[in-house]
Amino acid sequence: MTTRLAIIGGDAGGMSAASIARRRDEDLEIVAFERGEHTSYSACGIPYYVAGLVEDAGRLIARSPQQHRDRGIDVRTCCEVLGIDLDARMLTVRADDRESSEPFDQLVIATGAEPVLPNVPGAEAIEPARTVDAGERLRAALDRGGRCAVVVGAGYIGLEMAEALVSQGLNVTMIEAAPQVMGTLDADMAAHVQEAAEGTGIRVVLNEGVEEIVTDASGAPTEVRTASGTYPADHVVIGTGARPAVKLAADAGLALGDSGALAVDDHQRCPGHDGVFAAGDCVESHHRVLDKAVNIQLGTHANKQGRIAGTNATGGDARFPGVIGTAVSKICRYEVARTGIGEREAQRAGIEVVCATIEDRTRAGYYPGAGPIWVKLLAEPGTGRLLGGQIVGVEGAAKRIDVLATAIWTGLAVDELALLDLSYAPPFSGVYDPLLIAARATAKLA
Amino acid sequence: MTTRLAIIGGDAGGMSAASIARRRDEDLEIVAFERGEHTSYSACGIPYYVAGLVEDAGRLIARSPQQHRDRGIDVRTCCEVLGIDLDARMLTVRADDRESSEPFDQLVIATGAEPVLPNVPGAEAIEPARTVDAGERLRAALDRGGRCAVVVGAGYIGLEMAEALVSQGLNVTMIEAAPQVMGTLDADMAAHVQEAAEGTGIRVVLNEGVEEIVTDASGAPTEVRTASGTYPADHVVIGTGARPAVKLAADAGLALGDSGALAVDDHQRCPGHDGVFAAGDCVESHHRVLDKAVNIQLGTHANKQGRIAGTNATGGDARFPGVIGTAVSKICRYEVARTGIGEREAQRAGIEVVCATIEDRTRAGYYPGAGPIWVKLLAEPGTGRLLGGQIVGVEGAAKRIDVLATAIWTGLAVDELALLDLSYAPPFSGVYDPLLIAARATAKLA
Repeated sequence: MTTRLAIIGGDAGGMSAASIARRRDEDLEIVAFERGEHTSYSACGIPYYVAGLVEDAGRLIARSPQQHRDRGIDVRTCCEVLGIDLDARMLTVRADDRESSEPFDQLVIATGAEPVLPNVPGAEAIEPARTVDAGERLRAALDRGGRCAVVVGAGYIGLEMAEALVSQGLNVTMIEAAPQVMGTLDADMAAHVQEAAEGTGIRVVLNEGVEEIVTDASGAPTEVRTASGTYPADHVVIGTGARPAVKLAADAGLALGDSGALAVDDHQRCPGHDGVFAAGDCVESHHRVLDKAVNIQLGTHANKQGRIAGTNATGGDARFPGVIGTAVSKICRYEVARTGIGEREAQRAGIEVVCATIEDRTRAGYYPGAGPIWVKLLAEPGTGRLLGGQIVGVEGAAKRIDVLATAIWTGLAVDELALLDLSYAPPFSGVYDPLLIAARATAKLA
Repeated sequence: MTTRLAIIGGDAGGMSAASIARRRDEDLEIVAFERGEHTSYSACGIPYYVAGLVEDAGRLIARSPQQHRDRGIDVRTCCEVLGIDLDARMLTVRADDRESSEPFDQLVIATGAEPVLPNVPGAEAIEPARTVDAGERLRAALDRGGRCAVVVGAGYIGLEMAEALVSQGLNVTMIEAAPQVMGTLDADMAAHVQEAAEGTGIRVVLNEGVEEIVTDASGAPTEVRTASGTYPADHVVIGTGARPAVKLAADAGLALGDSGALAVDDHQRCPGHDGVFAAGDCVESHHRVLDKAVNIQLGTHANKQGRIAGTNATGGDARFPGVIGTAVSKICRYEVARTGIGEREAQRAGIEVVCATIEDRTRAGYYPGAGPIWVKLLAEPGTGRLLGGQIVGVEGAAKRIDVLATAIWTGLAVDELALLDLSYAPPFSGVYDPLLIAARATAKLA
């Protein structure tokens, strides 16, 4: 009898699982249920589509349902899973307003995340730009006109969207309840990002919570109101984060962790349920520096975890080694990156750290195109073990974060990092790479 | 009585030693002897000066003799050290055609490297463009006219110079005796570099040894002759490598290693001679992958080693942890980098390896500016430990080499590298960074 692998969710986590399972077992029946129209799309690319850097939204789709079907994966789009019966190994699904039952032997849950909207009047009228369709509707709305836009939330998605809207000629105000932009960075590093955003013409409003999104009779936004002011808004974009989409799994009896995401072991297994796996934005991952489970919603984790779930669902033995919080974005004239823990996270977790920040240039001073780079490192006092790094700077700055990620991952100490054999040539750095200079500065304190 | 630290050589190694010694001991007398006119200059910057990317040669000088003197370092320029008497702790120096004796308590030898000229008629007429002065003379010669240039040697300096000459409107032929350009890369990766050079208009001639540089009555070159052809040459640039400048130290009785460079321990001490240190292009370094001493001439090592020599010469205890052969260059439209060992080195050293090469894009496919990147990895069979990496690609490609350097340094295996938490955003890579893809491909073979 053929075995059947069912997958809930047709984006990065789910389709990575499906693809590797297909390659590993050609007899397996694989069915993937996706609520929307598209599969395997790059939500990360939506700001660039809105900015017009990507002309055709179709280019954000890495692999269409038909392409998956051509490889022997039975993709059911516009098909929502309503319930999971783990004992009967059966899904209840709805398509074309008809419900049916779908059996499974193995299951991969990759339901992703859902936006957290501000709990204020009018917010429900704003469609989050998290899918290709929603991105297309936003761009169509922009094409219809309007002069002012408000972006609610100044995290990396809010910043990327604000930059995209400025590039479309809009007056953009970004409203953030916290005292800084880019909450994943420490405040001192975030200040450079704010400066870049303002340099591009984005008005940054901090310490103001949105109280109402005022809409006209047609439901279109007209202004955004906070306790301190009113901001005209022909368009509103919401970037106030997302939570793991776990209701379906939790209703089925699967365990959630403290982060609110699905608890999985290092094989992406849902503990206590043989043959049930989960991957992507809906799960917890082990944070190797904090040594605790966290929910970090990133395509890079979703792809890797999906691959591991699909491997293990087909008799393999693959292990997800955890995360360390690495992330990168391009925000206006700066590249911005972080890995490990920042000062705020360290404080919250009761981890004592030393830290140093240096400013340098991305190339030899005499080489054309050199610009500023700031590097902040955190290390464990005593041992000097690197615990975190943040980088802001012009082109060429941010991918250096991967060196710090590798150093954190392997337990390297900053005094050793300071003498590591990193590459040097004038188009790429001064004779001491900024990372070496930052490591030396941090080592003096550790 | 004041102690006196003497330094031979006023470039990266020597002046790094002088600078840190000055900071660590304000009473120490520090005297630095430099044969030329300049101190602390960037020889790596000369191709960019020749290309006109750097207008003023003075910008290549990080710190002038006067700037060093203002910090309390007695720099003697145009002053050549002729002999070292290690027993009497005395140097014989010549300045203004007068010889004198200079005592020392501690000594740092940083005599650098000297060009290896092809042993053919006419080669002695060509001044190697290794110093700021020589760079200025070359640029002056170019300004006087000429249509054709020949670059002898297709290593990274030859390639950088060839690109500079093309940018000045010359017809450039590069002649190399070996069957490939860029001998520090494996042939398959070097082929991409050759393609970039040819794409810029450089004529690349391989497998031809130069037999004569023909000059006119004034000593100016007119053509370059090989066994197979004759190449017109109003200008000739020689980039056939350099050897450690060790005659002075060897004559004094200091030991050379198998590489032909000065043997030093991990504190930059010359064994058997208390208070005598050496640093930079003239010394051997421990190669951590090959586990043997090598001579690698790079400013980044010279600076670090000089700093360590200067620290230890002033009572400190600093250790140079060795090198792994990391290097980067920008060659025409590609960035080019390597670290660890390549296939050729592995074969020579009798090290068994597996290797894989992947081609990918530097950014998400839909993001503007994406271009090709090739990554080749070498790993130890069985353990999968990463032993080497080579990268060629468009902007943003090469600095990734530092991730591989960190992974080699810390003994990471390719299967673990394949799941490492590296950064992802569309302007910087696809959802799997090319390094992760290459690591996965290599892990399959290891």
